[in-house]
Amino acid sequence: MGTKSIAVIVGSLRKESCSRKIAENLIALAPPSLALDIVEIGDLPLYNLDLETDAPPQAWRRFRDRMHAMQGLLFVTPEFNRSVPGALKNAIDVGSRPYGKSVWGGKPGAIVSGSIGNIGGFGANHALRQSMVFLDVPLLQQPEVYLSGFDKLIQADGTLLPVTAEFLGKFMQAFAAWVDKIARP
Amino acid sequence: MGTKSIAVIVGSLRKESCSRKIAENLIALAPPSLALDIVEIGDLPLYNLDLETDAPPQAWRRFRDRMHAMQGLLFVTPEFNRSVPGALKNAIDVGSRPYGKSVWGGKPGAIVSGSIGNIGGFGANHALRQSMVFLDVPLLQQPEVYLSGFDKLIQADGTLLPVTAEFLGKFMQAFAAWVDKIARP
Amino acid sequence: MGTKSIAVIVGSLRKESCSRKIAENLIALAPPSLALDIVEIGDLPLYNLDLETDAPPQAWRRFRDRMHAMQGLLFVTPEFNRSVPGALKNAIDVGSRPYGKSVWGGKPGAIVSGSIGNIGGFGANHALRQSMVFLDVPLLQQPEVYLSGFDKLIQADGTLLPVTAEFLGKFMQAFAAWVDKIARP
Amino acid sequence: MGTKSIAVIVGSLRKESCSRKIAENLIALAPPSLALDIVEIGDLPLYNLDLETDAPPQAWRRFRDRMHAMQGLLFVTPEFNRSVPGALKNAIDVGSRPYGKSVWGGKPGAIVSGSIGNIGGFGANHALRQSMVFLDVPLLQQPEVYLSGFDKLIQADGTLLPVTAEFLGKFMQAFAAWVDKIARP
Repeated sequence: MGTKSIAVIVGSLRKESCSRKIAENLIALAPPSLALDIVEIGDLPLYNLDLETDAPPQAWRRFRDRMHAMQGLLFVTPEFNRSVPGALKNAIDVGSRPYGKSVWGGKPGAIVSGSIGNIGGFGANHALRQSMVFLDVPLLQQPEVYLSGFDKLIQADGTLLPVTAEFLGKFMQAFAAWVDKIARP
Repeated sequence: MGTKSIAVIVGSLRKESCSRKIAENLIALAPPSLALDIVEIGDLPLYNLDLETDAPPQAWRRFRDRMHAMQGLLFVTPEFNRSVPGALKNAIDVGSRPYGKSVWGGKPGAIVSGSIGNIGGFGANHALRQSMVFLDVPLLQQPEVYLSGFDKLIQADGTLLPVTAEFLGKFMQAFAAWVDKIARP
Repeated sequence: MGTKSIAVIVGSLRKESCSRKIAENLIALAPPSLALDIVEIGDLPLYNLDLETDAPPQAWRRFRDRMHAMQGLLFVTPEFNRSVPGALKNAIDVGSRPYGKSVWGGKPGAIVSGSIGNIGGFGANHALRQSMVFLDVPLLQQPEVYLSGFDKLIQADGTLLPVTAEFLGKFMQAFAAWVDKIARP
Repeated sequence: MGTKSIAVIVGSLRKESCSRKIAENLIALAPPSLALDIVEIGDLPLYNLDLETDAPPQAWRRFRDRMHAMQGLLFVTPEFNRSVPGALKNAIDVGSRPYGKSVWGGKPGAIVSGSIGNIGGFGANHALRQSMVFLDVPLLQQPEVYLSGFDKLIQADGTLLPVTAEFLGKFMQAFAAWVDKIARP
């Protein structure tokens, strides 16, 4: 069974975001059967069907081309206003079109959400799950990952607290098994 | 009791969108106690905390200034991938910041969702409600408005089918009563 | 402005439940404009339309009669499997019928959710909110109450930790103001 | 690959419920790799941890024993008040306990929701999905099944309208493939 390519999509756009740092650590924790790569979403123009011409925005095309080549999906996102950030939802919308050419369908996925406070991004996590039903992305159910105190899980050198690293390492093992079961060869 | 200013926020960006046409009809149906005005969201850069400097993007400032002056909120939105469009969620995020200066808090709101198929944008409608809890926007509960067959409710001359006009007229009456009860003078 | 009668509905049926203890403390914290009383739901037969005859179950009648006399609603609930307990949902269903005779409509409501872990019953809280839209119960939006570490907030003598008491006292003030604004005289 | 046993759980308790009739038709439409059987939930006492003794209610034991023997899950449910009926949520709660002995974990599942009106039970469908994340039930994502006009899909002789039969036949094929991929042998 060969290595599977996994798109890592980070919900926050700021440079020093907790989500990005968590994502980088998840990449380091991944078992060898997964090749993870962050796919950027910050330059995608807001979805507008009027732009879906023969020459859609260059950034949309770049994003869609990269995503089509991917075999699995890992979302790492903060919660904004009890849901996913607009930037992440916009990437989902851009990737879902044009009609019949979605980049998402059938690819195994998993979600890591987090927030500064206690709630661990629960609202964002499940809002994203609702979209993934329509987009036909089979999601890893357990372990659920809700990271509370998002900003305190990362040490000064950028690595995770040991207890978080252990938990997220197990999560990545479960995700790799899920990808093996679901991904197209 | 004076006229209240209501921001109408349209979830779809395309020019000829059903949401915009419905919004225009809702403006025409509004009782005299409400002054409705569409506030555009299509030019808002994706929210990114790194841009929240002394000079944030001009479009963010314009949007925030207009929204601060409003006394109530009417959302008219399609469903994209079982949730609100990324563009609408982005506007919500932009309006919620900077911390402590949200444009949303305490203003009475109502939601109209729609979709081409049967489901009437139920997923978008309730995803938006979840964000409005955090943003402290008291929402009109009944009548719920889920417009199915979104594209068939508008006649060639741009007006609504009579049955839809009657239903949405009653909805606007209920919204006006809600605004009277909740809005700050 | 007279005292308003508020039904307190506790989502957990076990005798020593955290929800019940929190509910009792909320009753003690209530400002004088609210008269709170727990309405029991543990003896309600599962809703079944076939039982909706001229002589529906006695427990349904008792519940409906008591609830009809109430002017507001306070839900205090744990999370079971990322949603409200079946017992609570059943009480909501029983109270919503027969058609046209719902006990819920138009009464101001508020929600306190909790869980042993970090998430504070977020899933239960918002699942309940979704039902309250249909049932036309205007809900207090802020402060949201998600009690994490539910079982550690109550001291040996049954009273709340001071920090929790202070937070919930403010919540009860906000709820009382909400009831004043919304409740029918 | 042998036949897999699938529990069919019907959300409505009334005898002549649309959900039950749809469930019976789904059983008839199932491909030979699936052996479907309705597991009754109407006699389950409301979940109460105080009853979780050495001798829990007989109905709980019967339900749990039958469910433990099942390899997959098919939910067929109406929407009550924008969520699953209390009776169905109660069955989920009963099956999830005692701690560490859930009947649900790891079994492939699918959901059919319906309502008399247009919305097709969308609220119930996704409320159920949220619980299934926690319970580690991998769900079929597509085709989603939202049955609108629930009561008009079944003919006088109890069979489905041809167009509905065709759609649900395809759904059962997709479910069978999902079970093959996920179910433990």
